[in-house]
Amino acid sequence: MSQAHEYVKAHFEQFKGQLFDLLRIPSISTSVEHAGDVERTAQWLADDLQRIGLHTVEIVSTPGHPIVYGEWIGAGLDAKTILIYGHYDVQPALKSDGWINEPFEPTERDGHIYARGSSDDKGQVFAHIKAVEAVLANGGKPSVNLKFLIEGEEEIGSTHLADFVAANRAKLQADVCVISDSGMPTPDQPSIVYALRGILTMDVVVNGPATDLHSGVYGGSVHNPVQALAEIIAQLHNPDGSVAVPGFYDDVLPLSDEERAELQKTAMTEAAWRQATGAPKQWGEPEFAIHERTGARPTLEINGMAGGYYEPGFKTVLPAKAWAKISCRLVANQDPEVIGTLVRNFIMNISPATIHTTVDVALGGPAAFVDIRTPEMQAAVRAYEQGWGKKPVFMREGGSIPVVSEFQKELNAPVILMGLGLNDDGAHSANEHFMVEMFRKGINTAIYFYEAMGAGE
Amino acid sequence: MSQAHEYVKAHFEQFKGQLFDLLRIPSISTSVEHAGDVERTAQWLADDLQRIGLHTVEIVSTPGHPIVYGEWIGAGLDAKTILIYGHYDVQPALKSDGWINEPFEPTERDGHIYARGSSDDKGQVFAHIKAVEAVLANGGKPSVNLKFLIEGEEEIGSTHLADFVAANRAKLQADVCVISDSGMPTPDQPSIVYALRGILTMDVVVNGPATDLHSGVYGGSVHNPVQALAEIIAQLHNPDGSVAVPGFYDDVLPLSDEERAELQKTAMTEAAWRQATGAPKQWGEPEFAIHERTGARPTLEINGMAGGYYEPGFKTVLPAKAWAKISCRLVANQDPEVIGTLVRNFIMNISPATIHTTVDVALGGPAAFVDIRTPEMQAAVRAYEQGWGKKPVFMREGGSIPVVSEFQKELNAPVILMGLGLNDDGAHSANEHFMVEMFRKGINTAIYFYEAMGAGE
Repeated sequence: MSQAHEYVKAHFEQFKGQLFDLLRIPSISTSVEHAGDVERTAQWLADDLQRIGLHTVEIVSTPGHPIVYGEWIGAGLDAKTILIYGHYDVQPALKSDGWINEPFEPTERDGHIYARGSSDDKGQVFAHIKAVEAVLANGGKPSVNLKFLIEGEEEIGSTHLADFVAANRAKLQADVCVISDSGMPTPDQPSIVYALRGILTMDVVVNGPATDLHSGVYGGSVHNPVQALAEIIAQLHNPDGSVAVPGFYDDVLPLSDEERAELQKTAMTEAAWRQATGAPKQWGEPEFAIHERTGARPTLEINGMAGGYYEPGFKTVLPAKAWAKISCRLVANQDPEVIGTLVRNFIMNISPATIHTTVDVALGGPAAFVDIRTPEMQAAVRAYEQGWGKKPVFMREGGSIPVVSEFQKELNAPVILMGLGLNDDGAHSANEHFMVEMFRKGINTAIYFYEAMGAGE
Repeated sequence: MSQAHEYVKAHFEQFKGQLFDLLRIPSISTSVEHAGDVERTAQWLADDLQRIGLHTVEIVSTPGHPIVYGEWIGAGLDAKTILIYGHYDVQPALKSDGWINEPFEPTERDGHIYARGSSDDKGQVFAHIKAVEAVLANGGKPSVNLKFLIEGEEEIGSTHLADFVAANRAKLQADVCVISDSGMPTPDQPSIVYALRGILTMDVVVNGPATDLHSGVYGGSVHNPVQALAEIIAQLHNPDGSVAVPGFYDDVLPLSDEERAELQKTAMTEAAWRQATGAPKQWGEPEFAIHERTGARPTLEINGMAGGYYEPGFKTVLPAKAWAKISCRLVANQDPEVIGTLVRNFIMNISPATIHTTVDVALGGPAAFVDIRTPEMQAAVRAYEQGWGKKPVFMREGGSIPVVSEFQKELNAPVILMGLGLNDDGAHSANEHFMVEMFRKGINTAIYFYEAMGAGE
């Protein structure tokens, strides 16, 4: 066991306590009221990066939430450089959403840390910070340079990250970018994600009457906006679960038999799907398996909809307005701009003259692929093998990390998606959790990876 | 001018100030937090009834909100008796719904009193209280007995009124029941409603996954409950605006040519509809005119729907649940129980196995008709003529007052719908208002009516 791994063993409880402190700050990036908490989290991380011995630590302001940057470049110009990306912002969470503990009061139960952001992504990025702390501890001099880029806007589309990356190419220069913001199907079989879906989001608003009306007095003569929006939404999918927007699948590349065979290795069983979702019956494109529908096919999902009176009780209102939030997950070769336009135009075309419809599309990013044949990826494979005692498998993931293609494009460096979470951690749901063993193995695996990269492998 | 009318003239500003006090109490019956305000309003009314000289005033507890009862029976057993019904509870209202003033801080602008409940129904019932105050003032001895029944649950389905009426038939005995809880199309042409629609409401809940899921990780394999509910709602109407539930129109009696001709007299013009609703284009059953669609035809309206993340910002969630609130307005000969079962069964039949759907039906009441040939109605016609200087017309109204058929059945007395509001008062909407002139004419017309009834007409 290396000195760094000994350090992890000796300090693990302390690391966990620090992670709890980090999880206590409700850094909800989408919420204006939490802007101060987001800022406070950036400061907390900068302080910790400073404390563990990085050479430079900065909190970089953006027109939105700040970016935390830190570097240790003591290995010299000839050594390899690893850029570690993560995000410190989190999704909204309220106890009333069904949480057992308060979402920002982390609680350990049955070997898991329950808190918003525990897995997505504070726990994962913090594993790297603790790995770097371990390699720098007691005068440690790793033979690899280490840089951190931790943003506060991932959950709201990484709005200001691209500008920062483009403007700081020299500073961010690296031989490999590591992103730990994804999950594995099970804790026992390590896996490495090599493909992520792209994303675009849109707000659809239907306006009808100028104000809410009495449904008894005007009902029957006014096209109800909630009904009209439901009619629009109902036309976005075909009865078999495929997306009904013309042209939606036009640019999707067919899955090769080889790829289907590799993906089959991490396929979710019907039982596992039922366990993870609790839904009564599988749904979706019948010619694709569950793991293909969620990982290798584009989707259109209604993330939320509301209109009229939907609180407890009853109000016989004919509402003035209804609105929906829709996102599309995209696969390789689909252009977010093209798909956004297709969906918007389709919605506008099927909107009747009895209502006013507006569709605001916000582009996320395209799908991303990672080359699995690079030496850096081989170093990662070995690190996982050392950390888990088992060779990792390769898989696709349905989520989206727009920064992947950003790094590939701007920094011209290979990206490794070193996921340390589990798929059923409940990211974005109530009772999000992070397995304590994943945190421990994640720290150790990260150290193995730095060592492998430092050895010039 | 009679002494009572002189009294109104002299005290009108004072009456208005009292109405403002009444409107300041947020007696929102559907809201648990406002239960105390509802109670306070009952007490306020009981105090005022006591003050104006009624013989008996009671606040009757029910399992829900209390009923205020009061009577003046000084005209003796041989005199006619008028039972005046109204309600003191109101719909919910928040400034953020689009109100100019705080909804419970009444404000007079351009001859209208703006406040929640100003028209529906505090202003209307208070006009009767002030009319009775006027006829009793200065030792006045009207030749008619007067009873008040003012409930606090009209906006939540008059849940406990039927039991009270059935249990108090002797006490409530009357020769005519007057209900002032409806509107006229314009302030210059008095009108009397002779038909009201029935109502039933239902809560539809669609459950899918056990918890909210990450839409990137599970989207495409789970039937999204918001989408599924939208698909259900979209199937409830045909493309022409008619209700698609099989059997929905089976018991509807055809409109006679005569009735259509009488209804045509108060028909809303296209321009008036546009002005009142602000909606881009008329909608609904093409073979019926607007005033027939809203007054003489049954409807199915979505009063509200929600699911997922619908607040500002974005949350890429695949929601566990979506729900909708639906109400049907019914016409004569339609049985609420039959229609409720038809709609529930239809929704259950079209719900796919990929979700769990529940439908909870709450019955309101059947449609009501009032005989326009009774002597009591003729007294009302004359009272309106005196109050307005113009003969009233007869019309149907789209709203529902379940108590009408309750009174007809239990008390075996004719009902007069003495509406004192205007159709565009914004009942149930933001900026509800009551025209000061309607309040004044309403008080005077009520006095003419009591006098006409007292004269044995």
